[in-house]
Amino acid sequence: MTPNSERFLSDLHQLRTFGAAGVGKGVIRPAYSDADIAARAWLADRMRAAGLTVQQDPVGNLFGLAEGRSLLLGSHSDSQPEGGWLDGALGVIAALEIARTCRENGRPAVSVVSFQDEEGRFGVTTGSAVWSGQIDLSLADTLTDHDGVTFAEARAPLAAGAGDFVDPAQFTGFVEMHIEQGPALDVADEQIGVVTDIVGIRDMRLTFDGRQNHAGTTPMQLRRDAFQAVSAFNTAINGRFQHVVSPRTVWTIGHVALHPNASSIVPGRATFSMQWRDGDADRLARMEAIIRTTAQEVADTGGLGLSFGPLLGLEPVAMDAALRTALEAAAERVAPGRWRAMPSGALHDATNVARLLPVAMLFVPSIKGISHAFDEDTDEDDLVAGLSVLARAVTDLDQDRA
Amino acid sequence: MTPNSERFLSDLHQLRTFGAAGVGKGVIRPAYSDADIAARAWLADRMRAAGLTVQQDPVGNLFGLAEGRSLLLGSHSDSQPEGGWLDGALGVIAALEIARTCRENGRPAVSVVSFQDEEGRFGVTTGSAVWSGQIDLSLADTLTDHDGVTFAEARAPLAAGAGDFVDPAQFTGFVEMHIEQGPALDVADEQIGVVTDIVGIRDMRLTFDGRQNHAGTTPMQLRRDAFQAVSAFNTAINGRFQHVVSPRTVWTIGHVALHPNASSIVPGRATFSMQWRDGDADRLARMEAIIRTTAQEVADTGGLGLSFGPLLGLEPVAMDAALRTALEAAAERVAPGRWRAMPSGALHDATNVARLLPVAMLFVPSIKGISHAFDEDTDEDDLVAGLSVLARAVTDLDQDRA
Repeated sequence: MTPNSERFLSDLHQLRTFGAAGVGKGVIRPAYSDADIAARAWLADRMRAAGLTVQQDPVGNLFGLAEGRSLLLGSHSDSQPEGGWLDGALGVIAALEIARTCRENGRPAVSVVSFQDEEGRFGVTTGSAVWSGQIDLSLADTLTDHDGVTFAEARAPLAAGAGDFVDPAQFTGFVEMHIEQGPALDVADEQIGVVTDIVGIRDMRLTFDGRQNHAGTTPMQLRRDAFQAVSAFNTAINGRFQHVVSPRTVWTIGHVALHPNASSIVPGRATFSMQWRDGDADRLARMEAIIRTTAQEVADTGGLGLSFGPLLGLEPVAMDAALRTALEAAAERVAPGRWRAMPSGALHDATNVARLLPVAMLFVPSIKGISHAFDEDTDEDDLVAGLSVLARAVTDLDQDRA
Repeated sequence: MTPNSERFLSDLHQLRTFGAAGVGKGVIRPAYSDADIAARAWLADRMRAAGLTVQQDPVGNLFGLAEGRSLLLGSHSDSQPEGGWLDGALGVIAALEIARTCRENGRPAVSVVSFQDEEGRFGVTTGSAVWSGQIDLSLADTLTDHDGVTFAEARAPLAAGAGDFVDPAQFTGFVEMHIEQGPALDVADEQIGVVTDIVGIRDMRLTFDGRQNHAGTTPMQLRRDAFQAVSAFNTAINGRFQHVVSPRTVWTIGHVALHPNASSIVPGRATFSMQWRDGDADRLARMEAIIRTTAQEVADTGGLGLSFGPLLGLEPVAMDAALRTALEAAAERVAPGRWRAMPSGALHDATNVARLLPVAMLFVPSIKGISHAFDEDTDEDDLVAGLSVLARAVTDLDQDRA
């Protein structure tokens, strides 16, 4: 079974005309915008033309359903406020191309989905979160965007054309193809990443309370400088984490707020974010213990107060072994020696869908690791390689079942 | 010659009724406010009552002049927007008490000054800066406060009562008594600090330019994290400074601004302040060299860009040896074993006056090192000890000359 790569690329370029930014290939197609609605109407037509039954659910998730039990492929077609042409769109159009190739070949049965608001105008991966039961619709309806519009208001215009929520029991699994959004494949000149797991996230705000003082008259040994505490904490955890982390673990201090934040005043208070991600929940917990212990040691040593904000967390999601094995075998045939197994450091709809179905993910490179920007791009050879891996894996899974 | 400590304390408490904050002994008496103008009118009356000739100059510096050549004592009577009762006021009222005691004893000749806007509503130590020629009056007139009022507008209402600038040639030297505004004397349970020098200040803004990236998908080894650069820089200079600094050197990173400053994004840019103070200009220069070298090393190691803002600086000012010796001898008699020679980490009017005259300074303790706050305070025993040191030094200097 060979998908039509020209038709695939043509549709992918067609999709980026909806909400075209006029800057490179960039798009402005946030969830429920006119451009997003128009793009979904076009997608629905393409699904029908491929012989699929179109069903849009009450929150705007758009399904193109095959008859009977089927594998579900897809991603999302909404974009960031300033987004690239491939983030989400790639997985949707690849799914469409595989589904119609399968229809043309008579089998296997493949359905297509474009989830709504993956980019989080309202929540985080809102459409798939509601479909999967990760959050209740009644709660989601109260979420607001930056302009104060509620999710309920945004989805109301869709009501006329909306059907029920799609029954997940008809699907055997979910595979999402996506750009990597990081630099690993591009740096290594590889074409394919087969995702092992979507990493878990921990995020916590810490505050050191020292003593605000005159930067001229306060001797160094009498200072309780909150910025010095942040720096000491950072240096210490960087060292201690080395005994715990894998090469794929990441951690970030991305937000720092000093008070009063003036050059002539010893900082009296520092609030900062600590975020860490890994595919292993045990490792996330060991890192949390190091963070709490180290912060307390720094506070005690320097005579500062310490407070921890609430720990926000999303659990790691392991990919389904059978789906992943099929993707790996296909990757080795399509791109021998030029693929890798790798975690996803970013969240995806697959995180939610894993509550309902076996899931797997496939990455293609992001040039220079850029995404969520107009200049997000991928070589077309790599896009087609990803499509080929998906087609082979779908065929192999069907043969295993047959 | 023995000053009248009760009269001294009484006047000091009287002065704090002008602009009383109603919180502890705190005052709200910024330069040119109604409270400040009223306080200066009262001070002028007190100067006249002490037999001094009052002369207010065009910017509001208020002098009480003795006849012929005299020593000048004083400080400032304006306050911070939320200030303490002693900052500046102490030096002015001590000068008044010494001057009238001298008049009562027939000698020596002592003049008094309360400089205007030491606290920098418009500039920095504005009144003494203009008098000393540190800045031109025409330039000072263009300075604005936070509400957009110009210095020219603020001083205009004084024009009717203003005389010329006072000729500094009539003064033999300037001695300023002041609260320490730091914790050194209070921590050591000492009563008197004799200032060796007013430290010089260097202040510079540095910027590391890294690469803004996704905190989930960007591996640690591929990051160019601007916050990590600030932390590495801070750790490195703290170590390297140990080979250069004295126990009295201070340095501060008081301002940090990350971009975009979000917990899920690797910081792409960090701008931060680096301020350092010391009494030795050579040491300040050696520290600057360490700062520049270390920042460049951190930038080169991490693949970041680096830029330095302009270096702002005020040179250290050494106190006059003869005046300082007289203060030290008097301190040892008044508070044997309970005084120290020490630098001033804060700026004072004496910095400017040093352009015109030999200067010296005397500190009394600040309880818990607190100043620029309503709860700024000093034991009255220590206030009186400072007055006694000043009186003895003035007498000794007169006898040396005689």
